[in-house]
Amino acid sequence: MRKTYTLSQLTQNLEVTIKGDAQCVIEGVCTIQDAQPGRITFLMNPLYKKYLPTTQASAVIMTVEDFENCPTNALICRDPYYTYAQIAAFFDDRPQPTAGIHPTAVIGQHCQIHSSASIGANCVINDNVRIDAGAIIGAGCVVGEFSEIGESSRLDANVTLYHKITVGKRVVVASGTVIGSDGFGIAKHQGIWHKVPQLGRVIIEDNVEIGSNCSIDRGAIDDTVIEQGAKLDNLIQVGHNVRIGRSTAIAGCVGISGSTTIGNNCLVGGQSGFAGHITVADNVAVTGGTEVSKSIREPGVYSSGLGGLVTNLERRKNTARFQRLETLYTRVKELEQALTELTEKKNT
Amino acid sequence: MRKTYTLSQLTQNLEVTIKGDAQCVIEGVCTIQDAQPGRITFLMNPLYKKYLPTTQASAVIMTVEDFENCPTNALICRDPYYTYAQIAAFFDDRPQPTAGIHPTAVIGQHCQIHSSASIGANCVINDNVRIDAGAIIGAGCVVGEFSEIGESSRLDANVTLYHKITVGKRVVVASGTVIGSDGFGIAKHQGIWHKVPQLGRVIIEDNVEIGSNCSIDRGAIDDTVIEQGAKLDNLIQVGHNVRIGRSTAIAGCVGISGSTTIGNNCLVGGQSGFAGHITVADNVAVTGGTEVSKSIREPGVYSSGLGGLVTNLERRKNTARFQRLETLYTRVKELEQALTELTEKKNT
Amino acid sequence: MRKTYTLSQLTQNLEVTIKGDAQCVIEGVCTIQDAQPGRITFLMNPLYKKYLPTTQASAVIMTVEDFENCPTNALICRDPYYTYAQIAAFFDDRPQPTAGIHPTAVIGQHCQIHSSASIGANCVINDNVRIDAGAIIGAGCVVGEFSEIGESSRLDANVTLYHKITVGKRVVVASGTVIGSDGFGIAKHQGIWHKVPQLGRVIIEDNVEIGSNCSIDRGAIDDTVIEQGAKLDNLIQVGHNVRIGRSTAIAGCVGISGSTTIGNNCLVGGQSGFAGHITVADNVAVTGGTEVSKSIREPGVYSSGLGGLVTNLERRKNTARFQRLETLYTRVKELEQALTELTEKKNT
Repeated sequence: MRKTYTLSQLTQNLEVTIKGDAQCVIEGVCTIQDAQPGRITFLMNPLYKKYLPTTQASAVIMTVEDFENCPTNALICRDPYYTYAQIAAFFDDRPQPTAGIHPTAVIGQHCQIHSSASIGANCVINDNVRIDAGAIIGAGCVVGEFSEIGESSRLDANVTLYHKITVGKRVVVASGTVIGSDGFGIAKHQGIWHKVPQLGRVIIEDNVEIGSNCSIDRGAIDDTVIEQGAKLDNLIQVGHNVRIGRSTAIAGCVGISGSTTIGNNCLVGGQSGFAGHITVADNVAVTGGTEVSKSIREPGVYSSGLGGLVTNLERRKNTARFQRLETLYTRVKELEQALTELTEKKNT
Repeated sequence: MRKTYTLSQLTQNLEVTIKGDAQCVIEGVCTIQDAQPGRITFLMNPLYKKYLPTTQASAVIMTVEDFENCPTNALICRDPYYTYAQIAAFFDDRPQPTAGIHPTAVIGQHCQIHSSASIGANCVINDNVRIDAGAIIGAGCVVGEFSEIGESSRLDANVTLYHKITVGKRVVVASGTVIGSDGFGIAKHQGIWHKVPQLGRVIIEDNVEIGSNCSIDRGAIDDTVIEQGAKLDNLIQVGHNVRIGRSTAIAGCVGISGSTTIGNNCLVGGQSGFAGHITVADNVAVTGGTEVSKSIREPGVYSSGLGGLVTNLERRKNTARFQRLETLYTRVKELEQALTELTEKKNT
Repeated sequence: MRKTYTLSQLTQNLEVTIKGDAQCVIEGVCTIQDAQPGRITFLMNPLYKKYLPTTQASAVIMTVEDFENCPTNALICRDPYYTYAQIAAFFDDRPQPTAGIHPTAVIGQHCQIHSSASIGANCVINDNVRIDAGAIIGAGCVVGEFSEIGESSRLDANVTLYHKITVGKRVVVASGTVIGSDGFGIAKHQGIWHKVPQLGRVIIEDNVEIGSNCSIDRGAIDDTVIEQGAKLDNLIQVGHNVRIGRSTAIAGCVGISGSTTIGNNCLVGGQSGFAGHITVADNVAVTGGTEVSKSIREPGVYSSGLGGLVTNLERRKNTARFQRLETLYTRVKELEQALTELTEKKNT
């Protein structure tokens, strides 16, 4: 049976003013456009304001500015999306595993596993691993020797951690992600590539979240570091010795080449790519698909390429125009000369 | 020992006319250029027509137009590639697992697993999962609570399904793919990112195929949906609340940001990226590497960027030319003014 | 306790001249900028020369040209990075698994597993697999029927090999990588996509290294082949029937479409994409993010797109400039006509 809460219960620790019936019973969340009675939603994105006057939701979380158009109970606050996040947590029905080690898990020697941690079925925890209180290791995970997983952190099913990986507190790592694989270090000698041993570690600081199927390489000499509160989406490549700063958020399919440092509070759009050995300042945003080919020293919003989605036919024309550009420079130069001559003649 | 079939046996349920020896024995498939006796091939791509007159294959599937140049047995049909697909199925030696639950699989409580389904070694099937007739769950898969896998669907080894995922009938999911990880929902409050609970599900409809190492996030509020017959290649990111329409085919390494809807019968080239909250109409094709930065309302073929693979030296010149473009505008403007003055003087 | 070595011990089989104290004891490696006593480093990249005079390292590997500025023991050699790779191997503390089959591994029928091979916990080795001397199969790997893994090769944890995959000697495959999933072969018939059976194999030759979370599809008819000594980084898609040449190195997040051939000794920058059915010559380099849309017949360095990371504002201006380009062509044409008329008038 679905759990329900009154608006009063949902908001008791929040900085929210209830306009309407504080005893209204809420059984779940909904979007503002596909709303239904008994559900709560929020309004943040101006594009969705048009749905407010007719929404069927039983309550809407909003700023005071939108209140006049609200046809139902309103929760007035400064930051509706953040308030929504707190309220939605009441309705999160993600299964909570029980503490303890599943009988099918394989546990190495000299491990320190806190009694309140949960080790899922068919996990393999290698020797000398430390897993702290409340940590959850999903089914099928493999954790390498001497790795450490901090308090209340969670590895979802089928995550792979190599040896000597340090994961802080309250970290979340989604399924399929690999942390600590060898960096791409190869040295060519007499026409043949030779592997350069990758001797560094990976440090994942507190409150980091990493999506699914990411690849985070261990350092070559020093460590690869993801600083506290950074958030990574899915299918992201983090090369060896990369450092990602505090509270930086990185969207899906981004590739970061080795030894690059990204500052604090940056925003990285999906499918962007970073060259190696560069530095990106704090508070930089790069739009989706940007090739960050050199260091960025100043905060700001950066892009590369020419914008513009067009028909394929138009793109071909654009390309042709572009290829004639050198000719155009020549023609303008000739015009300038002709005009100069003409003017000189005239004046003589 | 390899199984063999006569052309007659291979084609008995197909709309095909055999020109030549219907009793010719076929033991496998081949390409038209590397053909050998005893094998069957097909001709579809005009680039390969040149190989027909000298092919060593024992039979070639083709349209009637190509028949005159065929040196061997011909299977005449309207759609050679589709006919090839049906005939190749005879030679598919993919191992077929036996029905039943492998003794090393871990099965939760209240699961409904059909007796004809196959659950591989070291699988973890969590509580309240339903697996229907003929479904195949490969070794090492983890299936989350309350998920459902329809008739004759197949998860290859090491696939991860989170909780409450619905997979239809005859769906194929290749290894390493993760379905139902949390969407990238984060809300910034006082400089810190907070997780927004992801409460939706993922619905994979009938006849969908998903390649390896894809990441398909669960919805934030509503569900992420992949409609029937859609085909996804490898390493594709599908953000939360994305909807992919019927019979749409998406090549590898594509990223689709959250809340975007792609219509029916679309074709998406590899490494393309879709912005969030946009809508793409039915019957749209986008070429490889396209940044779909806004909604596409009309069918057609779309692209972004400037085409053209060139030497790196040429690219640097192109970039330099482009950077001088503003100067060129100025020079043309000055020319126009000079000419106007000259003409006016002349006329006065 | 950390193992230590004298410079003399570290270099006894190498072509290196020790300048300084051959008995100096080394306990590990370091970078030249963050060096400390007791550690050894190397100097190769000119950008780091400035750190040499003040480095705290106990020894630096370098070419003779840099020797005059070296404040400590020097190991003089021709190729410092390669020499570093050999010396770093002394300090590689990657855990070495013991030979034998872990009791939780599931081994199929008719397998040939060499007694010196190591099969990790919870592995699933299907029927008719051959694993040669010294091979290491990490925890949680699944190896499909009739696959073969050569001498001294290593699959890290949670790698998936499908059936009939051939892996040569001294191959390394990092976690999460999938080898042998079906290629993206679909045939449309009456508006519906039908699967084309993928009947080829994957051949990974000797000394290949493949990073984490890569997807390497099996061939449709013939095989997908990665030739000896090729090196692949993470999150790379290799389509069906692709052939990657000897000693070619491919950076992360690259996508290679089906039936494309890349030559020997090529270098492929990160996030590049290759169209299908094309051929790239030997000794080609493509810079990061290049769309290789057609065959490359000659060695050289290739790129696509317009370079240049700029502010988003500048990018918008660039796009606007570009969109006015057609107008500019028209204006120049008009100028040319006007000038011609003017000149003609003048001459008449």
